[in-house]
Amino acid sequence: MKITMAHGSGGKATSELIEDIFEKHFHNPVLAKMEDSAVVPGAERIAMTTDSFVVTPVFFPGGDIGRLSVCGTVNDLLMSGAKPRYLTCGFILEEGADTDDLKKIAASMAETAAEAGVCIVAGDTKVVEGKGGIYINTAGVGFVPPDVSLSASSCEEGDMILLSGNLGDHHAAILSKRMNIQNTIQSDCAPLNEMVSTLLESGVKVKAMRDVTRGGLGTVLNEFAGASACCMELEEEAIPVSAQVRGFCEILGLDPLYMGNEGKMTVVVAGQDAKKALECLKKSRYGENAAIIGKVVSGESGTVLLKTPIGGTRIVTVLYGEGLPRIC
Amino acid sequence: MKITMAHGSGGKATSELIEDIFEKHFHNPVLAKMEDSAVVPGAERIAMTTDSFVVTPVFFPGGDIGRLSVCGTVNDLLMSGAKPRYLTCGFILEEGADTDDLKKIAASMAETAAEAGVCIVAGDTKVVEGKGGIYINTAGVGFVPPDVSLSASSCEEGDMILLSGNLGDHHAAILSKRMNIQNTIQSDCAPLNEMVSTLLESGVKVKAMRDVTRGGLGTVLNEFAGASACCMELEEEAIPVSAQVRGFCEILGLDPLYMGNEGKMTVVVAGQDAKKALECLKKSRYGENAAIIGKVVSGESGTVLLKTPIGGTRIVTVLYGEGLPRIC
Repeated sequence: MKITMAHGSGGKATSELIEDIFEKHFHNPVLAKMEDSAVVPGAERIAMTTDSFVVTPVFFPGGDIGRLSVCGTVNDLLMSGAKPRYLTCGFILEEGADTDDLKKIAASMAETAAEAGVCIVAGDTKVVEGKGGIYINTAGVGFVPPDVSLSASSCEEGDMILLSGNLGDHHAAILSKRMNIQNTIQSDCAPLNEMVSTLLESGVKVKAMRDVTRGGLGTVLNEFAGASACCMELEEEAIPVSAQVRGFCEILGLDPLYMGNEGKMTVVVAGQDAKKALECLKKSRYGENAAIIGKVVSGESGTVLLKTPIGGTRIVTVLYGEGLPRIC
Repeated sequence: MKITMAHGSGGKATSELIEDIFEKHFHNPVLAKMEDSAVVPGAERIAMTTDSFVVTPVFFPGGDIGRLSVCGTVNDLLMSGAKPRYLTCGFILEEGADTDDLKKIAASMAETAAEAGVCIVAGDTKVVEGKGGIYINTAGVGFVPPDVSLSASSCEEGDMILLSGNLGDHHAAILSKRMNIQNTIQSDCAPLNEMVSTLLESGVKVKAMRDVTRGGLGTVLNEFAGASACCMELEEEAIPVSAQVRGFCEILGLDPLYMGNEGKMTVVVAGQDAKKALECLKKSRYGENAAIIGKVVSGESGTVLLKTPIGGTRIVTVLYGEGLPRIC
């Protein structure tokens, strides 16, 4: 069946769509009440975030827009040290969108939400003219434990910088699918709950965490360096990139430092805790390729430097404009 | 300036857009931290909701998509008895969208958020191909006082049904603008904080509240009648509709019972409190035309009846599919 404008009218067609697809997959006691708002237990400190997802194609190797829409918001909550609890989701459907695709996407969201330990408590569906596109907004609430305080502005000289795994997989998977390039690259799209809780519960002094999405590692570390008024120095050789993605980047002239990922994070820890932090990442799900990739050094404030294997140093700037559109 | 795909890349163009428009208007200490999530004080019980806004045209008499996107989510929180506190907003912009329009919309959101007492704590911007359209998702969190318990399933025989003002203004304003019909009808788009707090603090026993948006009053009351397994009876003559909207409806063959509003609510209260509830609504901002419009009677469960001025009775069903698209 195809989506029509009537599915967005707020009448019976909307109700039927919700019952057939969203209620079926997202069913839980809160959502079942079908009130204007979900009323749920709260906490003394909460984290809130939102993200819209417009990735094309909606199905790609290693994931789909549904899995992505849960992981993206869950990971943003995790990065502030929160325990993700609730999600809302807003669907904007273009006329002509396929309801079978929507069912698969809803099933994938439900599965990923279960993995990430979050409950989908509220939703909304709108329909617009167009060519069958599917856009999903998720917003999330997490509970922040009293003792957690992370901030992009907390990094200081002597801290070490870690990356939780290979760069560029999501970006390369999307681009390969869009350009019809044959390879076995899969998106890394994943919720990082286990990794973050292992790290935070280990006693490691974590200064800042950020998932490495749009804009890539280069952009994230520039945000850290700017907010903390510090200088970061990366070892190019230490940055993990799979052989296949490296080859893909060389052919297309792409730099893994600016490629988007959907299941990777970078974390800055106190220098003496770096080894322990690495062990935590490596033993966690999705963290097997984690590495220490650099450190905070004395140097020009707000700058990120990259030491190349042949002994050179170049400045890593933020991504400007030319990133792959509709990657997430 | 026009929005390009680069504004959605996550790089420098995205940052500049955020700084120029969203930071400027939404500026507050939480948002200024620019972390992946906002960390804010919580409460023991919270309400959560989400809504996407795709209204066209984005500017209309009495409001715009920005004001609408704040009112819609604030009102949904209010309807569960919550005090609205935080909003997130996700913008999905079509390539070619005008940045001057975006600035006006952001200013309107900021002004409405201030009126409604909510803080915009997190945001996201994506860009997709298209013809300059602007879509906004808002999600909201409110704090629910311990003594509040409202539910669509709480209505029972003897309860009275109130409406906070004239039906159909928003719907008629959008349709007039879209059809280029000359009149002075304005959208009723408004946050209902004052009305709801006046009512809840008055001691009136409120059973259920719902804002009357897409699907109209007919659809909302059918949801109440279904959830409460009761029969509701409306007096057609008691339902407030302005002369101009009534005339508009007659010409176009529209039924105010199914027209969308963006600043109206219906409330079911214990019978003995109806008069007091009406006084509360009438003395509140946006409530001057409030009326008692019907009651919960013995009769077929899940049914809404309408008594006409000439003594007839007809069944009010839910809206099926033929509602005006992209009204909100």
